[in-house]
Amino acid sequence: MIDKATSVRDTLEAKMGHLIPARTGFAFTVDAGDYIEVVDVEGRQTADFWAFHQNDLNEYLSAPHTRIGLMHMFPGPGEAFFSNHRRPIIRVVEDPVPVHDFLSAACDPWRYEELGHKGWHASCQENLELAMKRAGYGWVTTPQPFNIWTNFHLNPDGTFEIRAPETKAGDYILLRAEMPAIIALSACPQDITQTAGGNPTDVLVRVLVPTPAGRAGRAQGPSPARGGGQGGGLR
Amino acid sequence: MIDKATSVRDTLEAKMGHLIPARTGFAFTVDAGDYIEVVDVEGRQTADFWAFHQNDLNEYLSAPHTRIGLMHMFPGPGEAFFSNHRRPIIRVVEDPVPVHDFLSAACDPWRYEELGHKGWHASCQENLELAMKRAGYGWVTTPQPFNIWTNFHLNPDGTFEIRAPETKAGDYILLRAEMPAIIALSACPQDITQTAGGNPTDVLVRVLVPTPAGRAGRAQGPSPARGGGQGGGLR
Repeated sequence: MIDKATSVRDTLEAKMGHLIPARTGFAFTVDAGDYIEVVDVEGRQTADFWAFHQNDLNEYLSAPHTRIGLMHMFPGPGEAFFSNHRRPIIRVVEDPVPVHDFLSAACDPWRYEELGHKGWHASCQENLELAMKRAGYGWVTTPQPFNIWTNFHLNPDGTFEIRAPETKAGDYILLRAEMPAIIALSACPQDITQTAGGNPTDVLVRVLVPTPAGRAGRAQGPSPARGGGQGGGLR
Repeated sequence: MIDKATSVRDTLEAKMGHLIPARTGFAFTVDAGDYIEVVDVEGRQTADFWAFHQNDLNEYLSAPHTRIGLMHMFPGPGEAFFSNHRRPIIRVVEDPVPVHDFLSAACDPWRYEELGHKGWHASCQENLELAMKRAGYGWVTTPQPFNIWTNFHLNPDGTFEIRAPETKAGDYILLRAEMPAIIALSACPQDITQTAGGNPTDVLVRVLVPTPAGRAGRAQGPSPARGGGQGGGLR
């Protein structure tokens, strides 16, 4: 965990908080400059994360544009994800457990079918679709998500392994919106592989804004905290 | 180059051939079982490749589904790319120069803007859009392409480098359609970076089917030829 005394969170206050029950999704809007805190309530949970421009669902956080924009796997503190229009859309502010996946698709009904599951199974793709509909948006094609805390380890020979997340209860990631955005999150329902440690649990999300004291106080630069990334250093 | 005597191409004949001029795109349909040969006419050229289900443009060759389906970076001979419905859509049959990119977005107008270009510049995304319109399809959202021969080298520390393609004149890749598909290709117009060796050139594409002798002859298993992949072994 990052030293609490150095966390930007100390200068912020919540304007929205929502507990996303295990296996479900949630979508909400944020203004440019809003902070988004995602918390792993019980530990070893993964959260699929999407962001869309509030005025144009065809502009969204894009994995292939982010990678070529950064010339590495995914952003660390101070760096941003890029949209498919190559604009910064979401910035990473603090990331104390920087073990994430940015290579894999969201789980979907076909994924559970190929894993041998019979009948309906919740999936991150369906969670996105339902959350967007509930929030008043129509059908969206599912972009590749940023899979927070998903530990698909990339081996030196180029193969992946699905490992359980490294998070403990209360671990968080702090992000900031760079444009007015629609955010969608799915508390991944994967209970067949180790993606969610075999036991899907809740995810807490809060939207934070600077307190009056925070606004008057120190500049909110990104925390210097960094660690390993995908594949032991691939980020 | 693969030993000519062992190439599946010797058992095939062309039913369509098209020279894609440098910096432009082309789209065409294939039946399930058709072979698709892409040839680097002059060498050091890269070709962005897309595939869509012929009956549903919302099903397309998907990088994040392929990676998690294969549990490695991209398919080698005998393996397939998966669609976003997790079905095999395109199989790799022969790939004598297996240095490709499957991490980066197609170049687009914003890419050239960020590289400092003033005014219009051809781009792979626009080439896809125009080729699809010319072939009678409407506007498509650009999926992440398979960037044939694009040599975005992935270093052990997780950073990328843009290197020139390793192809020589006449080098090819042989693919096979696993479903009725719309194929789109762009002879990448990138002339600012080394993506196309600094000098965009033509790409030849042919659709091949077994000759009567080929149909009667030996089984058409994939060639065993393989080599390195993205990032010296990452495929």
